[in-house]
Amino acid sequence: MKLLVLNGPNLNMLGKREPEIYGNQSLEEINVDLAHYAAEKGIDLTFAQSNHEGALIDQLQEAVGQFDGVIFNPGGYTHTSVALRDAISSIPVPVIEVHLSNVFAREDFRHFSYLSGVCLGKITGFGENSYKLAIEAFELRK
Amino acid sequence: MKLLVLNGPNLNMLGKREPEIYGNQSLEEINVDLAHYAAEKGIDLTFAQSNHEGALIDQLQEAVGQFDGVIFNPGGYTHTSVALRDAISSIPVPVIEVHLSNVFAREDFRHFSYLSGVCLGKITGFGENSYKLAIEAFELRK
Amino acid sequence: MKLLVLNGPNLNMLGKREPEIYGNQSLEEINVDLAHYAAEKGIDLTFAQSNHEGALIDQLQEAVGQFDGVIFNPGGYTHTSVALRDAISSIPVPVIEVHLSNVFAREDFRHFSYLSGVCLGKITGFGENSYKLAIEAFELRK
Amino acid sequence: MKLLVLNGPNLNMLGKREPEIYGNQSLEEINVDLAHYAAEKGIDLTFAQSNHEGALIDQLQEAVGQFDGVIFNPGGYTHTSVALRDAISSIPVPVIEVHLSNVFAREDFRHFSYLSGVCLGKITGFGENSYKLAIEAFELRK
Amino acid sequence: MKLLVLNGPNLNMLGKREPEIYGNQSLEEINVDLAHYAAEKGIDLTFAQSNHEGALIDQLQEAVGQFDGVIFNPGGYTHTSVALRDAISSIPVPVIEVHLSNVFAREDFRHFSYLSGVCLGKITGFGENSYKLAIEAFELRK
Amino acid sequence: MKLLVLNGPNLNMLGKREPEIYGNQSLEEINVDLAHYAAEKGIDLTFAQSNHEGALIDQLQEAVGQFDGVIFNPGGYTHTSVALRDAISSIPVPVIEVHLSNVFAREDFRHFSYLSGVCLGKITGFGENSYKLAIEAFELRK
Amino acid sequence: MKLLVLNGPNLNMLGKREPEIYGNQSLEEINVDLAHYAAEKGIDLTFAQSNHEGALIDQLQEAVGQFDGVIFNPGGYTHTSVALRDAISSIPVPVIEVHLSNVFAREDFRHFSYLSGVCLGKITGFGENSYKLAIEAFELRK
Amino acid sequence: MKLLVLNGPNLNMLGKREPEIYGNQSLEEINVDLAHYAAEKGIDLTFAQSNHEGALIDQLQEAVGQFDGVIFNPGGYTHTSVALRDAISSIPVPVIEVHLSNVFAREDFRHFSYLSGVCLGKITGFGENSYKLAIEAFELRK
Amino acid sequence: MKLLVLNGPNLNMLGKREPEIYGNQSLEEINVDLAHYAAEKGIDLTFAQSNHEGALIDQLQEAVGQFDGVIFNPGGYTHTSVALRDAISSIPVPVIEVHLSNVFAREDFRHFSYLSGVCLGKITGFGENSYKLAIEAFELRK
Amino acid sequence: MKLLVLNGPNLNMLGKREPEIYGNQSLEEINVDLAHYAAEKGIDLTFAQSNHEGALIDQLQEAVGQFDGVIFNPGGYTHTSVALRDAISSIPVPVIEVHLSNVFAREDFRHFSYLSGVCLGKITGFGENSYKLAIEAFELRK
Amino acid sequence: MKLLVLNGPNLNMLGKREPEIYGNQSLEEINVDLAHYAAEKGIDLTFAQSNHEGALIDQLQEAVGQFDGVIFNPGGYTHTSVALRDAISSIPVPVIEVHLSNVFAREDFRHFSYLSGVCLGKITGFGENSYKLAIEAFELRK
Amino acid sequence: MKLLVLNGPNLNMLGKREPEIYGNQSLEEINVDLAHYAAEKGIDLTFAQSNHEGALIDQLQEAVGQFDGVIFNPGGYTHTSVALRDAISSIPVPVIEVHLSNVFAREDFRHFSYLSGVCLGKITGFGENSYKLAIEAFELRK
Repeated sequence: MKLLVLNGPNLNMLGKREPEIYGNQSLEEINVDLAHYAAEKGIDLTFAQSNHEGALIDQLQEAVGQFDGVIFNPGGYTHTSVALRDAISSIPVPVIEVHLSNVFAREDFRHFSYLSGVCLGKITGFGENSYKLAIEAFELRK
Repeated sequence: MKLLVLNGPNLNMLGKREPEIYGNQSLEEINVDLAHYAAEKGIDLTFAQSNHEGALIDQLQEAVGQFDGVIFNPGGYTHTSVALRDAISSIPVPVIEVHLSNVFAREDFRHFSYLSGVCLGKITGFGENSYKLAIEAFELRK
Repeated sequence: MKLLVLNGPNLNMLGKREPEIYGNQSLEEINVDLAHYAAEKGIDLTFAQSNHEGALIDQLQEAVGQFDGVIFNPGGYTHTSVALRDAISSIPVPVIEVHLSNVFAREDFRHFSYLSGVCLGKITGFGENSYKLAIEAFELRK
Repeated sequence: MKLLVLNGPNLNMLGKREPEIYGNQSLEEINVDLAHYAAEKGIDLTFAQSNHEGALIDQLQEAVGQFDGVIFNPGGYTHTSVALRDAISSIPVPVIEVHLSNVFAREDFRHFSYLSGVCLGKITGFGENSYKLAIEAFELRK
Repeated sequence: MKLLVLNGPNLNMLGKREPEIYGNQSLEEINVDLAHYAAEKGIDLTFAQSNHEGALIDQLQEAVGQFDGVIFNPGGYTHTSVALRDAISSIPVPVIEVHLSNVFAREDFRHFSYLSGVCLGKITGFGENSYKLAIEAFELRK
Repeated sequence: MKLLVLNGPNLNMLGKREPEIYGNQSLEEINVDLAHYAAEKGIDLTFAQSNHEGALIDQLQEAVGQFDGVIFNPGGYTHTSVALRDAISSIPVPVIEVHLSNVFAREDFRHFSYLSGVCLGKITGFGENSYKLAIEAFELRK
Repeated sequence: MKLLVLNGPNLNMLGKREPEIYGNQSLEEINVDLAHYAAEKGIDLTFAQSNHEGALIDQLQEAVGQFDGVIFNPGGYTHTSVALRDAISSIPVPVIEVHLSNVFAREDFRHFSYLSGVCLGKITGFGENSYKLAIEAFELRK
Repeated sequence: MKLLVLNGPNLNMLGKREPEIYGNQSLEEINVDLAHYAAEKGIDLTFAQSNHEGALIDQLQEAVGQFDGVIFNPGGYTHTSVALRDAISSIPVPVIEVHLSNVFAREDFRHFSYLSGVCLGKITGFGENSYKLAIEAFELRK
Repeated sequence: MKLLVLNGPNLNMLGKREPEIYGNQSLEEINVDLAHYAAEKGIDLTFAQSNHEGALIDQLQEAVGQFDGVIFNPGGYTHTSVALRDAISSIPVPVIEVHLSNVFAREDFRHFSYLSGVCLGKITGFGENSYKLAIEAFELRK
Repeated sequence: MKLLVLNGPNLNMLGKREPEIYGNQSLEEINVDLAHYAAEKGIDLTFAQSNHEGALIDQLQEAVGQFDGVIFNPGGYTHTSVALRDAISSIPVPVIEVHLSNVFAREDFRHFSYLSGVCLGKITGFGENSYKLAIEAFELRK
Repeated sequence: MKLLVLNGPNLNMLGKREPEIYGNQSLEEINVDLAHYAAEKGIDLTFAQSNHEGALIDQLQEAVGQFDGVIFNPGGYTHTSVALRDAISSIPVPVIEVHLSNVFAREDFRHFSYLSGVCLGKITGFGENSYKLAIEAFELRK
Repeated sequence: MKLLVLNGPNLNMLGKREPEIYGNQSLEEINVDLAHYAAEKGIDLTFAQSNHEGALIDQLQEAVGQFDGVIFNPGGYTHTSVALRDAISSIPVPVIEVHLSNVFAREDFRHFSYLSGVCLGKITGFGENSYKLAIEAFELRK
């Protein structure tokens, strides 16, 4: 099984950005950790990150035929992007929405997601483990 | 590690109720399956279900000192119960909110949860696997 | 035909409670009257009342296989209970929602019902006769 | 007892219009059926239909002194007409609001009625039987 | 004068739950203290607590003829229960709504109460003293 | 000066309808009274009433070239008719909106008017005198 | 008959302020004109203006026993003052609300008035003549 | 192909009404122009206009069997008429909604249409050409 | 202990104003009564009232160093004054908000208070006794 | 006449994406078809598509001096982009907004457009023909 | 150039009030500092402060002819005063709105200002420097 | 001190775009002017502009370690971008939000900013001088 781990805007700042919310690990450290976790299950991970909404749409479209699933942390675009919603709807690859923090314990505008309704499922609040649970979710549905 | 799997109203109807949304397995079948999944990880599960909001509050309160965590599918009370929110806030035991269906793809009133903001995290949309992912989430944070 | 007449919170106070809204008859008197009305049509009525949301859910679930229909006055839970809505959705027994008073002529919060959309129909404003009309409704659809 | 059965806009299209919502019977067939049902109870029915809001107001006003009650399906004007509300308030003849479909299971704008608050009661969701139940309602309150 | 002190959901967790909001005293300690305060005024207190909405309704209904007033802290049901509102309306016994914390300084959903409009009055923000002031309120209106 | 006094739906029921709100005079009596009041000022009044929104639009359009102003009580259409708003905008004849009752002391939906913003002015709450004040308003702006 | 003409904030700027909305006449010129208009009807006018909400409340309270009516242009306080509403409610002297401009053709926040519901009536959009019509309104109701 | 060009309230005032919004051509001039445009495509146009909501419903119902499509400018009823929506739903003839002005650049209440969701499509903002584009739209889908 | 009893707009009209809501006692009579009640507890009361929002702010600011607490009935300013909220926040003297009537049983706009969130607590609905309970509240927290 | 046909996010997925909503033709096939339709009218089309909001803004800005008009299907950015609205406002080239599907028959968030108010007009619901009608619209306004 | 520095309610409490929000300097200290800053630019400052909305309106009106500009910190009246908005609109003197704190990082009700739309500009969040920037703003536009 | 002047979408159109709102100067001319203004204070400015939300996020992230502050005019993204808000939160460099026009005097959707709450402060309405005031603001806080 091949999965794309796709991170949206500002997730490249992990470890530098508001550690009380997002923890101290950098995105690179997290990715290494995830790769190990996945490898043990025989799953192959590819990593991508962009601050550009359009680039994230491009990545989702290009996932078709290349990946068996996408683990997507859409960052701030979660709450504002109909275009990403349409991108997810327009591809047959299943997408799981993940968030590091418990978005429901933060500002009101973070409670709404344009994307959840068209994703396979949503996992939120477990820090780095949110990604691991998404890997496990793809593993379990095989 | 000992975990309580707590199910709210109408989840005792699983398998009988709207299978296009909730699947064909009964709650008993799911619980047997979960017990196996947990046992492999050396985790001990206890199961409870009630249609009574007050009984669910009682269960959460009684979990203190007995369980290391609660996996809670609050069913229809998710969207309407401040009392359950207060129960979760009032206990030191961590609670993970799970849902079988993707609540964000259903009626608008199911998008709001009084509970998410005071839970450890939320896992939604993976059918029975939502519970398994919650078990894994407790396992990973050890 | 066997029907369950299920009354929600505070309907046991009929006759004692706000007679300008709910009339002077006690619930017992109404039930006797309804039993006569039904008997003439060869319909068998069973009566239940509870102030507990969970107990009403239990009753609805237990109606499966026992009754051909439920006449349900959900009282104050009409406006606040997703759990009761789910209970009605989860059973194959048809449910008719009835109210004694014209809820649409009262406070704004009484105009909304979580239940109407999943019931067979709704009858409101006819006092005790709301129940009789529901009996007639079940009779007519035979 | 003499009753006016008053139908609002597009109800003359019954049988031709969206049969999955409104059934296959024409308004004429329904009226014949209702006349029989009423006649057995010694009740005399008069039928009227108009697509014109003003004509419906005229009919309600002219009902004074001629009818003992009005059974009114206001169709699409239910949700938008303060003028019809005022017409009902301005006459001493009791009016029962009926709908064929379960308006609460349809679009949000159909959940609101300007008229319910000033009618005797509301019966919705029973197809043709909604009218019969209204006849029975007038019979029962004699 | 005989008064019922009725506490709603999670108030049995006092002292254990969020002491920065609710203080360090247990409900039992508070009740002992209140009993002394009342006894000095020749007032007899009875105490009850439940996490069950339906049980609270039952208690209110049973207060008729037994108590001269009810001091009611409805906890989380304050903000969501039409059924409790109806219970208070349906009994002739006067009810005073009390809260330990200043609910208006907390989350928005705690600012709204279904119950205040049908209670004699509301006292909020004085910790344990909210109950004492309610006792004094009943004393003063004699 | 020639003025059209145009009355909307249900105003033909004056004297018969809710006298505690609208008074005991019939529309005919009011019109006779207004004609006298106007005649003393050398103003010629024409009277029209309709329950039909379309007929009121027709009347407003036909007022062009015939009348120096329109005194318009739009009744229930005040709150719901964009079409009447457009009719008033589309004619060069000035229109004054009048109401018998103080609409701002009644139901919320009566507080909004689609028409006020395109009328010369609004006079509300003076019973029959609302019309007289509109006559005086046209007199004063000569 | 003695009437108080009470003007609220910024009306002392008339003639200097936004003449396209409020015209070119100063408040003094308007008052002279109104005094003549009233004198012809044998009515005695007293004039007052203040930019202070509290001073306007004082004036309304002091009107008791001194005046037969108040013509009140509350200016910007119209839309924000519950205290002025309470002042009008608390005195037996009838108050007519007037506005120079057509407030309904301006910003949305000017469409709402806390005061209209407790005034005798409302006259808006006739420039200086709004005051004259209020004088006539008091004259007519004698 | 035979098409009905149906115009709603106040469109008979074109050329006379707010030319800065609606242009200088009368409805008659527009219709002549449209007839030529259609004739070149071998399409036969019939024209109708009414200020009466009910008459427009009648016209839509009568279009069945007579026309292959309806080009409908509903004027002010666009924003307020559920009854017209139901009329469009109830007929098998396709309807295209057109507007002369760009309704989205005008008052907020003109942005909402009850009708768009049940029409084939919507064309707005092109003046007289909105109708021509609707003719072309019917031509193209042949 | 020295307390300031501060009354806002229109409370000087007590006894004259809407006695069905506010009772028959004048403010002076209430104040005499309160002084006695306080004196028995060895508490010294000072009384102030103003219809001016600014004067109430001045009084609150001047309370610093002079009083141990303020009992404040802000009247109509309760619902509209951010400036009074800021005044309460800006002083170290504790303030208790009181109301004579049960504001939650009245108009919707009276349910909201800008002040409650920054006061020590709120006591509402007990008539004159609301003030006495506030005195007792200060006494109890010593 | 030279026109730019500009397509927003996910329109490159046409034919692959939700064919029940968007049809089976690919964007390339549509473009070939449009080029033919335009060529017959002597109109020259240029095609562009991007998933990047910024790139679409760039394209609109660069259209100045190069094109006589833009036919713009903004896809998901329709509902969320003030920046695109400003881009359209900032160029003198007229823009027509088109949509393949009837956006008004889909999710609520698709009913709102930030762009319609600053475009020449809007054409929606005609599939590929929406673009052809926009070409015709530019042709007709020559 | 002569400027009026006008401070609204509670700003006289600076240094004493919530120093974590407003800093430790008193208003007098700030004013001395501002006077120096202005003097270096050859600008003459006059200072005024009031807790009274009416007094602030008076000051704004009296600024005409005396000052070249007003630097206005309206404090809590920012969010609630239409009367102050009208005062600013009614004078030809330009007004700059300033705030010490970043109002957009505080309670929701502080995000809205009735005044910003009629001021020259708004400067917020720079503590004492907000005033200096307003001085510079007047200097730069000379 | 080194500052980044960062401009968002469509600001490259300055001078060409809606001069009645944004003035006649091009962005280049403004930048030259700002550079001079800053140089006099010994401040070094770097300029950047992009229509791409993602590119603006990249620029903000890259500002870390390179600049002492950012002067940011986010253009249309002000009102819609959570991602830019997060970018500002995630960097230690202080950001001042500036706007040329008085956004509060324009469309409602321009009154809301996702960014203001996480910026140092906001300066709006002074045309080019808004940038100069931001330079001065950074100068003053040294």
